[in-house]
Amino acid sequence: MQSNSSKPSFKVIGTRPIRPGDTDKATGQALYGVDVTLPDLLYGAVLRSPHAHARILSIDTRQAEALPGVKAVITAADLPQPGSARGEDRYQSENTLAREKVLYFGHAVAAVAATNEHIALDALELIQVAYEVLPPVLDPDQAMQEGAPILHNDLSTGANEAPTNLADHMQLKRGDVEKGFALASVIVEREFHTATVHQGYIEPHNASALFSASGQLTIWCSTQGSFSVRSQVAEILQVPRVHIRVIPMEVGGGFGGKNRAYLEPLAALLSRKSGHKPVKMVMSYGEVLSATGPTSAASIRIKMGADASGHITAAAARLVYAAGAFPGSPVGTAANALLAPYRIDNFQIDGYDVVVNKPWAAAYRAPGVANANFTCESVIDELSQKLGLDPLEFRLRNAVREGDLLPDGAAYARIGLIETLEAARAHPHYSAPLAGPHQGRGVACGYWGNGGGRSSASASLNSDGTVNLVTGSVDLSGTRMTLAMQLAEVLGIAAEDVKGSMADTDSTGFADGSWGSRTTFSTGQAVIKVGQELIRLLCKRAADIWKVPLEQVSFADGEFSSGKEKLAFKKLASMLGWDVPVLASAAVNPDSVGPSFATHIVDVEVDPETGQVRLLRYTAVQDTGKAVHPAYVEGQIQGAVTQGIGWALNEEYFYDEAGHLLNGSFLDYRIPTCPDVPSIEPVIVEVPSPSHPFGVRGVGEMSIVPPPGAIANAIHAALGVRMEVLPMSPGRILEALWKEEEALE
Amino acid sequence: MQSNSSKPSFKVIGTRPIRPGDTDKATGQALYGVDVTLPDLLYGAVLRSPHAHARILSIDTRQAEALPGVKAVITAADLPQPGSARGEDRYQSENTLAREKVLYFGHAVAAVAATNEHIALDALELIQVAYEVLPPVLDPDQAMQEGAPILHNDLSTGANEAPTNLADHMQLKRGDVEKGFALASVIVEREFHTATVHQGYIEPHNASALFSASGQLTIWCSTQGSFSVRSQVAEILQVPRVHIRVIPMEVGGGFGGKNRAYLEPLAALLSRKSGHKPVKMVMSYGEVLSATGPTSAASIRIKMGADASGHITAAAARLVYAAGAFPGSPVGTAANALLAPYRIDNFQIDGYDVVVNKPWAAAYRAPGVANANFTCESVIDELSQKLGLDPLEFRLRNAVREGDLLPDGAAYARIGLIETLEAARAHPHYSAPLAGPHQGRGVACGYWGNGGGRSSASASLNSDGTVNLVTGSVDLSGTRMTLAMQLAEVLGIAAEDVKGSMADTDSTGFADGSWGSRTTFSTGQAVIKVGQELIRLLCKRAADIWKVPLEQVSFADGEFSSGKEKLAFKKLASMLGWDVPVLASAAVNPDSVGPSFATHIVDVEVDPETGQVRLLRYTAVQDTGKAVHPAYVEGQIQGAVTQGIGWALNEEYFYDEAGHLLNGSFLDYRIPTCPDVPSIEPVIVEVPSPSHPFGVRGVGEMSIVPPPGAIANAIHAALGVRMEVLPMSPGRILEALWKEEEALE
Repeated sequence: MQSNSSKPSFKVIGTRPIRPGDTDKATGQALYGVDVTLPDLLYGAVLRSPHAHARILSIDTRQAEALPGVKAVITAADLPQPGSARGEDRYQSENTLAREKVLYFGHAVAAVAATNEHIALDALELIQVAYEVLPPVLDPDQAMQEGAPILHNDLSTGANEAPTNLADHMQLKRGDVEKGFALASVIVEREFHTATVHQGYIEPHNASALFSASGQLTIWCSTQGSFSVRSQVAEILQVPRVHIRVIPMEVGGGFGGKNRAYLEPLAALLSRKSGHKPVKMVMSYGEVLSATGPTSAASIRIKMGADASGHITAAAARLVYAAGAFPGSPVGTAANALLAPYRIDNFQIDGYDVVVNKPWAAAYRAPGVANANFTCESVIDELSQKLGLDPLEFRLRNAVREGDLLPDGAAYARIGLIETLEAARAHPHYSAPLAGPHQGRGVACGYWGNGGGRSSASASLNSDGTVNLVTGSVDLSGTRMTLAMQLAEVLGIAAEDVKGSMADTDSTGFADGSWGSRTTFSTGQAVIKVGQELIRLLCKRAADIWKVPLEQVSFADGEFSSGKEKLAFKKLASMLGWDVPVLASAAVNPDSVGPSFATHIVDVEVDPETGQVRLLRYTAVQDTGKAVHPAYVEGQIQGAVTQGIGWALNEEYFYDEAGHLLNGSFLDYRIPTCPDVPSIEPVIVEVPSPSHPFGVRGVGEMSIVPPPGAIANAIHAALGVRMEVLPMSPGRILEALWKEEEALE
Repeated sequence: MQSNSSKPSFKVIGTRPIRPGDTDKATGQALYGVDVTLPDLLYGAVLRSPHAHARILSIDTRQAEALPGVKAVITAADLPQPGSARGEDRYQSENTLAREKVLYFGHAVAAVAATNEHIALDALELIQVAYEVLPPVLDPDQAMQEGAPILHNDLSTGANEAPTNLADHMQLKRGDVEKGFALASVIVEREFHTATVHQGYIEPHNASALFSASGQLTIWCSTQGSFSVRSQVAEILQVPRVHIRVIPMEVGGGFGGKNRAYLEPLAALLSRKSGHKPVKMVMSYGEVLSATGPTSAASIRIKMGADASGHITAAAARLVYAAGAFPGSPVGTAANALLAPYRIDNFQIDGYDVVVNKPWAAAYRAPGVANANFTCESVIDELSQKLGLDPLEFRLRNAVREGDLLPDGAAYARIGLIETLEAARAHPHYSAPLAGPHQGRGVACGYWGNGGGRSSASASLNSDGTVNLVTGSVDLSGTRMTLAMQLAEVLGIAAEDVKGSMADTDSTGFADGSWGSRTTFSTGQAVIKVGQELIRLLCKRAADIWKVPLEQVSFADGEFSSGKEKLAFKKLASMLGWDVPVLASAAVNPDSVGPSFATHIVDVEVDPETGQVRLLRYTAVQDTGKAVHPAYVEGQIQGAVTQGIGWALNEEYFYDEAGHLLNGSFLDYRIPTCPDVPSIEPVIVEVPSPSHPFGVRGVGEMSIVPPPGAIANAIHAALGVRMEVLPMSPGRILEALWKEEEALE
């Protein structure tokens, strides 16, 4: 379903052309990182820590180096010193190869390049590492306690303070919280705990590198940002950017987890040390789970109050996010998003970024927000119940609109939360009767801010009137097409006449990575500028052909006109012949973005004997702004909801007390499979964003946010128990039911 | 040696930085077409005609298709019909795969793709082709005669004329030739014959193609022009340009022979027919010699007269050039270049383009001019002798200068012929005594027009102040560096801070191929425009930083200045941080070029017993315009002279009467080797070209032109015989000596 609200009318935007690359991906012909083959290719493997926390006393690589077929062995000693200052660069270096200490199970300690994978793996067993094992700390609350094992001896809250695991404390405040709660007629306070979960992309990390004798480094890899790999490798290896060429291959899923470079600097170092041979590295899935960047586990206490008229009077929240081995959890983003859908005059939110002996947390689709939103939407649901209000009605009374402020004080431009709430209330799903016992319906809203960021684009006209468009934005979700469509719209030609490509870092202008649902939005604006420049150049050519002044030439609906004469775009292109080539480039860094809102409805049936939750029906209403390619938008919503379901019901890292990961495989780490997921109905609501010429908003991340809250509320409706933990796995459901029964006895 | 005449002074232009790729090429790490490997790669091979001229009665591919491991077999039936109109496109198609007739020994008839090379070669032997063998014609004079075998039944001089082998007749005239000869006190007339020679690049043609199920065609190949491969394949296969991506690999020599696509369309068709598997094809050297594009054999009659004051009064010439199997010899270029160095009021030049049963002639370094110039410079030498004038003095009296006209009527701008003549006369070589008997010294001048053509360029600023420059111009001779140097000069940074790259056709603006010595000249002008645009953008950023109006910001010597404050280029770049990316693109199509002239001096010693010619000393004076990278310019001059020496003394195709190539290997086709070539002293004379902001002229082709004439004149000085044939191989020298002796008896 798609509303037709959006103006102005478009010729290409909003249509559903076939993506050229789809058949290639379906038939396995698209080239991914694992397809890279080069002459004299060596294979790399990584030795990883068996301990969650230990001091490295010594590393002896002599036996490994002596093994026939081994061409290079590297340790942190082969990395340039990152410098003593705390910060991203040093953490990047220490995460690439552990220096004094290993900080999590799977932390890279050494790497080997050999003539084949088997020799490389054998060589790993010949590397002797002496460890002094230290007690680990895995839980962020425990990590903040007095006497907890300390990960970093230079992390402290103040100059003369003792080292701590608390990397950062931030606070958002408005009004008078005590006064706010005093005005409340109902108050709910709960504490929630959410597990560590992984993005679960199917394609493991991979990188191939050739560090040539003349100092030119070429890297083929699976990344969300070729330029960000370039700068990370430049900083870790201290090489000028102009010597590094990153060639982005097709990506088999990223979701935030492929922004950071893991294998790339290792492959580069191994290539240089092995006499400038190309080196290829591919992670096993166990390595992906244990040593890349899952999202933060969190412990969240939240208290909210509302008055008899159904307005929220106050909120207080304390978010503790586990950053993993190095600082940088998304707690700041989570704190701002937690209450973003609601107008609240009095609140205080405290966020804590805490290091623990787990892999360094990375971004995951709307980083940090799905678990935060779960807690707020559970409490909102409970408040509406206590007030005897329909949960959508209660949300509508408190929903933010244009001019309202985010918790961080920024003002909203035109947004679509209310439109999604009304579309949800009007949707047949919301009024459909439930069939049986132990069934329940839940709703939840959610906010995601979306990203802006730096993008550039270039386009070149072909003599047959087709156009090649190139950007540095990695295509994760079909953006080669959504960008080509925006250019085709400007040029007044068919989407099929524009080919969008992603080029390597040598061949195109700078672009930030494809994160924050930013590509169609930000890079799209660079593409639109390029299209306008092409039109300007072609108006000149038309003026020359017609021998009229440039001012007399206009362009509309794909036609150049002199008033008297007309030329269609492709016709003019075919007339240029032996003329100066027509190309243009442009760059942008939008200073505003269009935030997204969504309202989801879910029906569940819970088996009180087994605790299993079955999803019966799912409807996801999202304000997508103008949907460039509605089929992709629907796919993004369905994919996001599916990941949200995994987060809600199945996914979590299991560690033993020593900090060993116990479920490091897709057999034991349960992402949703087809039987777990109902048919998800995406409902596109198009409230055009004022920050994009066509009204485009980010789309991809939003709908991972509401599912945990919506499902938790549905489970409560079905069983009458409030779940305070993610995932809400069968065991946890039963525990909650037993607790409820005990309480009743 | 290098003159310092050129103004203005440069910081980067004229220096000799190390080319980053050189070590990679020397160590074998640079990636050439043969290094391309892809998953499921198939190998292709071509079945070629054993006859010089035959009608194809039938082709039976069934047995070949049945051979295990064979994935596809193609013939002309798999090519789209090229349409009936005569012209380049149809010839391209018929040269790719013979349709009704094979027109030369080695003409492609069918192609096979198999799982390895051996199976592919075996399969060729299983293809049954029934031929009706026809009499061939190999010599262009014979081909023009009544009753000669006719290659094309639709080639005729007029509507109702009978088919002929004469593809074109062109004429250049000025003044009154008869009156001119009447004024002459000395007249020389001679007839010359020159053999078919090959560019002799070391790297054979190769192409890999992946024609995906979604209709996207990717081609990796060794070419001088990735965009020209794209358009040739687009026309031959009738596929939109936007579906074709050509990735140019490093090139192991081209010299004009790698402009045309041979294997590319075959690999593409085989890939599509084999179920969209990638297909790789590499020619044997025998295939390179027999089935690519050597230069034209020629038969040239030339008559020139001069008066007692040593001025040329008239010239008449008839050039018959063998185009090979399809029309398009460089006879037009040759006709215009033949008399280009001299002011002649009365001349008539007739050029004939004739098809013969030899491979389709292609461009070879200054196409068609080396053999034409050999004839003119031999006659000029003889005239100067009859007049008792020093050969350089005679040339100086007749040399063209600014304002004079080319034979085709175009006027010369500032040129440097006289400067090269004077530098040659002043060079110690010219006055050095000759040591022994049978030694002689010869001189010759030459002209080459150089090319302009369409180019584009884009550049992107990195946060560390380095710059990535990308163009679609294939780098044959170090142009990535000579283009980077021009950008560095404009930006006021070091050459090492700019990386020049060649991108594939999807990723960069259109550029004509790297022919006509055009890249440093034409693409350089696009690069300079890009540099100026980058400076304009950065002046804006500086103005923002200084909060001053843009008009107040100036840029000079690598520094931005507000009058009060200053910022060096790299410093400003480092201050931009989270700002809009800085990139620019530009395109050019220069409407004038700077022609080149050269004057060469050579000393030879001839062994009258064996006829072997030994080169004792060689000095090549060339007006290069401003030399961007003098070391490359010197290398180009030395390489061109070496090829000219091969043309003069060794190189020729041997055919039997049936038209079979008898010397299709580097063992039997004798290109010069180290013992054949003396140390060649390049002398750079820099007369800046008014057609380029830095005074650049084309460099690469010029110095292949004078060697045959200079060596012929030196042989005459040594032995007193005038050679009227190329190559002047030992056998031909002896024949000439015997003829001379007979004449004396």
